[in-house]
Amino acid sequence: MRRLADRPLITPADVPPSAPDRRVVGAFNPGAARIGDEIVLLLRVAETVGHADDVVVSPAWDPERGALVVDEYSRDDPDLETIDARLLRYRGRLRLTSLSHLRVARSRDGVSFAVDERPALWPKTALESWGLEDPRITPLDDRFLVTVKAVSAWGVATELFSTRDFVRFERHGVIVPPENLDVVLFPGRPAGRFAALTRPVPRALGDPAVWFADSGDLSAWGGHRPVFGPRPGAWDAVRVGAGCPPLATDAGWLLLYHGVDETDRYRAGAALLARDEPWRVLARSARALLAPEAPWEREGFYGGVVFPTGWVRGAREGELLVYYGAADEVTAGLQVGVGELLAALEDGA
Amino acid sequence: MRRLADRPLITPADVPPSAPDRRVVGAFNPGAARIGDEIVLLLRVAETVGHADDVVVSPAWDPERGALVVDEYSRDDPDLETIDARLLRYRGRLRLTSLSHLRVARSRDGVSFAVDERPALWPKTALESWGLEDPRITPLDDRFLVTVKAVSAWGVATELFSTRDFVRFERHGVIVPPENLDVVLFPGRPAGRFAALTRPVPRALGDPAVWFADSGDLSAWGGHRPVFGPRPGAWDAVRVGAGCPPLATDAGWLLLYHGVDETDRYRAGAALLARDEPWRVLARSARALLAPEAPWEREGFYGGVVFPTGWVRGAREGELLVYYGAADEVTAGLQVGVGELLAALEDGA
Repeated sequence: MRRLADRPLITPADVPPSAPDRRVVGAFNPGAARIGDEIVLLLRVAETVGHADDVVVSPAWDPERGALVVDEYSRDDPDLETIDARLLRYRGRLRLTSLSHLRVARSRDGVSFAVDERPALWPKTALESWGLEDPRITPLDDRFLVTVKAVSAWGVATELFSTRDFVRFERHGVIVPPENLDVVLFPGRPAGRFAALTRPVPRALGDPAVWFADSGDLSAWGGHRPVFGPRPGAWDAVRVGAGCPPLATDAGWLLLYHGVDETDRYRAGAALLARDEPWRVLARSARALLAPEAPWEREGFYGGVVFPTGWVRGAREGELLVYYGAADEVTAGLQVGVGELLAALEDGA
Repeated sequence: MRRLADRPLITPADVPPSAPDRRVVGAFNPGAARIGDEIVLLLRVAETVGHADDVVVSPAWDPERGALVVDEYSRDDPDLETIDARLLRYRGRLRLTSLSHLRVARSRDGVSFAVDERPALWPKTALESWGLEDPRITPLDDRFLVTVKAVSAWGVATELFSTRDFVRFERHGVIVPPENLDVVLFPGRPAGRFAALTRPVPRALGDPAVWFADSGDLSAWGGHRPVFGPRPGAWDAVRVGAGCPPLATDAGWLLLYHGVDETDRYRAGAALLARDEPWRVLARSARALLAPEAPWEREGFYGGVVFPTGWVRGAREGELLVYYGAADEVTAGLQVGVGELLAALEDGA
């Protein structure tokens, strides 16, 4: 995998805030789609409010009032526990330090992107009041299906949206209840049904693992079964989650996924799933194919993270352009061949 | 609510182990159904193996070998952490100290139960290898639908079974992926669709709360939305979960649910859900209606727990017989009037 540039493609500085009082702190984890000769990214844009060093803020959207609500906590407050750049705990309750919405960026060459002035999707319901995050885009029939993390005090669920033009979006509601994220839809109907990979996050027993689900109508989902989990001792020892939506190849469904090890370092690898039984793993990369090495991957809002979320076919046959979030802050790109990825897969699950 | 007896109705001593080398440590959290003039309970029977004081065991079912696998840990082993009677952690991994299956018990008077010699449902799949737990029974059309916690290293999911006679069961697979338990089906089709209350257990954000889901075919579920969560400061401050399946009344769907407070004490209360919009709470009991007070509720395998899981109509009009697990060890019963429960509900969610 070769980085498309020696810098991130999109940084927070490239994104106009959604209102003058807000500050963009992240433009990352993008869904990707090709429409004609244009590449469209749907960015997760994380914003916060204010600049004061002596307070920590947690912005949220109040769907009833249609207004941003910003809770401020003094850094001296004994009830405040700052956990990392992303999270705080106040009187025992976790809150986010930023609110994410989704924003469109467009490019002809896949490297230079023009970012829209205004949000494409903004939180609207009570289940979205802490933000919309990490969109994954799957072209299916005559439209694009977009799975999005909906975050609120109720937890992290995944919702489905659809669009034809990335201007008008239709909301289809929650497809898997909390805690479930990194949900990607298949660009086809393996075994005759709509299909998805989900990533339940159990609390008491079990690791965050990749599961399969299918649907006859995209609204109701069943057929839940595990596909693959973390591998003790490996680069994906602690948790795994789908990255880019599965890609149809002659060998099976090719998946780029992220894995996390005991040091909370996010890397990426590939898996190959059986064409007609996509819950069956044919092969899985023994070594990570992408690790946080560039400066913007090692350091940032939350350093040590590469997080692929979208890919489109490149200009050359068999070439893919991969888009990923780095350090929970910026968007970067890679170029890789489908054949290269298949060759990097070793047998066994 | 009046206890049916001054003792539990079924204890581990009443249940023959599933094999001579096993020891029954729990007979609790039963689903309940009425078939003609017989009351059928489907008990969760928890078993362990061995008696030695210097070892801790974790039994599991190996579905491929069709055999019980018992891992033994010396109490001196520095890698072993005993958490409570139910759980141990070995080298960082949680395991259960017992394996549960489901067993039928039958009664004419609702108080004296004859327990079957053999299990009714035994773990079969990889998702059930750590046990089948806490069945809830809903009569619908000409059969009984049974939701069951399927526990394994993949997490705690909920599976659906159906039966007409509690002898032959049909397996319908996972209906909600991990971590989701305390799933109860509605005995009807509110808004024209099959409906359920689920209880997602999110890890990072959000509390264990009661959610709604619906289905056209009982296999694929959608329409997920929150119904009610814990109430800070109240008897149900930390988590809530459906107890007995909803009961149709003129006022709406009557639900008996459990709530847990900061001291990990399990109590029970009632909620009333709108008839045609069962995700809408009409009323909820401000005070607990049942608390661990009897000796077998205060002390046991895991003390301080009352956990209602089934109810059937009693002999008198408007009377309910409620069955509940106590202290994660025994099954006990209550008698209560529907009118009494409705009267105990105060307005507000």
